[in-house]
Amino acid sequence: MTVTADVCVLGAGLIGGSLMRALGPERAFGWNRSAAGAEAATAAGFAVTTDLHDTLRRARQADALVVVAVPLPALDAVLGAVAEHAPGVALTDVISVKGPVLDAVRRHGLGARFVGGHPMAGTAHSGWAATDPDLFRGATWLVAADDGADPDTWARVARLALDSGARILSATSAEHDAAVARISHLGHVLAEALALAGGRGGDLALALAAGSFRDGTRVAGTAPDLVRAICEPNRDALLDVLDDCLADLRDARASLAERGTLGPLVDDGHRARRAYEEARAGTGGAGAPVEITPGAAGWLEELRAAGAAGREVRPGVRPGGRPFRPDN
Amino acid sequence: MTVTADVCVLGAGLIGGSLMRALGPERAFGWNRSAAGAEAATAAGFAVTTDLHDTLRRARQADALVVVAVPLPALDAVLGAVAEHAPGVALTDVISVKGPVLDAVRRHGLGARFVGGHPMAGTAHSGWAATDPDLFRGATWLVAADDGADPDTWARVARLALDSGARILSATSAEHDAAVARISHLGHVLAEALALAGGRGGDLALALAAGSFRDGTRVAGTAPDLVRAICEPNRDALLDVLDDCLADLRDARASLAERGTLGPLVDDGHRARRAYEEARAGTGGAGAPVEITPGAAGWLEELRAAGAAGREVRPGVRPGGRPFRPDN
Repeated sequence: MTVTADVCVLGAGLIGGSLMRALGPERAFGWNRSAAGAEAATAAGFAVTTDLHDTLRRARQADALVVVAVPLPALDAVLGAVAEHAPGVALTDVISVKGPVLDAVRRHGLGARFVGGHPMAGTAHSGWAATDPDLFRGATWLVAADDGADPDTWARVARLALDSGARILSATSAEHDAAVARISHLGHVLAEALALAGGRGGDLALALAAGSFRDGTRVAGTAPDLVRAICEPNRDALLDVLDDCLADLRDARASLAERGTLGPLVDDGHRARRAYEEARAGTGGAGAPVEITPGAAGWLEELRAAGAAGREVRPGVRPGGRPFRPDN
Repeated sequence: MTVTADVCVLGAGLIGGSLMRALGPERAFGWNRSAAGAEAATAAGFAVTTDLHDTLRRARQADALVVVAVPLPALDAVLGAVAEHAPGVALTDVISVKGPVLDAVRRHGLGARFVGGHPMAGTAHSGWAATDPDLFRGATWLVAADDGADPDTWARVARLALDSGARILSATSAEHDAAVARISHLGHVLAEALALAGGRGGDLALALAAGSFRDGTRVAGTAPDLVRAICEPNRDALLDVLDDCLADLRDARASLAERGTLGPLVDDGHRARRAYEEARAGTGGAGAPVEITPGAAGWLEELRAAGAAGREVRPGVRPGGRPFRPDN
């Protein structure tokens, strides 16, 4: 059986390049802004050019799934090119915030065949040299379940995630952004604040610092520009979570000052950490993957319900529907 | 040469029991409140009884260094017994906050031969079963440099730390408490707040959580009572640090809301984390240990200066002075 190249990756950096390598050069082709990145990908056997127009024409001809894997600031320019040269393609992305991407896609009139995605994987490094075909193995890949999502595109994005070794969780873009503000972006902000507090204690404090400081400040070791690029596009959700967190900290501060105890924060935080540990160990509410058929009645509501329960989903075959990939 | 038992440990829990095991039954004897703990220590070859009066009488007769290794709430009762039965002994402690201990010791009239200590080591477990003779190996042991400290006692506490495998840092009790509020107690509070924020996101958020949430909330896995016992006695220093941290977080929140960027917090936090990493790697200002002779002119100022620079200290021999241990 001849495999048709069916995935067009725009941006051969850490995520896009790792995705290409996970799929192999038979299935993945693409574009990269910089010649150096395109050359590195080409040397590795992939058809990657610096000609966006040409790449999009090929994607349109092959009915490939186009994966936008550029940093958020480059999104608008890339979507403009898609709208001009391949407006009808199936479209997804791997950017770490989903609401702003969905808004931009709709502004460019590309919403009909768009399903957003976010593979929860990465390293502190970037560029083709940092790519890893196993980057997504065992990772969680959020496949969006927004109103009006095209079932065929959803199934193709889901298959892409599974073929890369990831497990799928689904939620609306807004639910995703609220969740990652809690479990990722707030953690970045608190790690910076803890590091700064330690640093203000000078060499004595840093010399006394042990494991809890090391772990609590680890992500403050990430390059500041990258931290900003991760957190700031999720501004609205992060502001909400920061406000809640500031209120919790103010309450604990007041309780300590007035009654000598940090109050319920310690019990509540401990309970939440235990729930997280149980979810990790598979002893929480997660359970087995839920099979959901894209396009079946109520499928988006089912996806969101599974996501809200933290349950992995898998695409079932649509009754009488097309197979998920054009080539199988 | 006969070794005289010269260290009397009051409290055979994780820290006190590990200290006894690090020194061995030839040097360490002691007391434990619970019969079960005393029996476990006795079974391991140590002279540990539940008779505090008798133990203190033996300490006085041997001129042993008495190490208070009970939890802070039990401190007053133990110091009362010391004041009654062995008021002249050399005294130290291993409690994680130093100012409140120093105040209590002075209230009981025991300040003349007291030098506080804090080995920066521990696990989430407690009791004799959790003890480990290597618990202090490579750890930092804070030996206090408070006004009026007795040089002979300081040297004995320093020798105790070295004999247990630890490295010594020195600072005043107030400096210690301010530093650990920054690098330990604030980290506990922020970990609880981060865990709580994640937990409020429900199963979806916990299922999306990855390495940064795992590391940032790790110490929220500590039992709430233990977290309170660690943090709350350091109330005043922790309030100061919490106020600074709340101001930093409010500034970042305002900057994000008004200008779309988290502002200087990210750069400042990153810089502090890098300074910490450099201190860990030995590439910071730490350098070789500073040898300081207890009792020599300006020795307390030298200790504090070394501590402020994050530098390890070692006791030098006093010119014409007594040797550090009565038995060598």
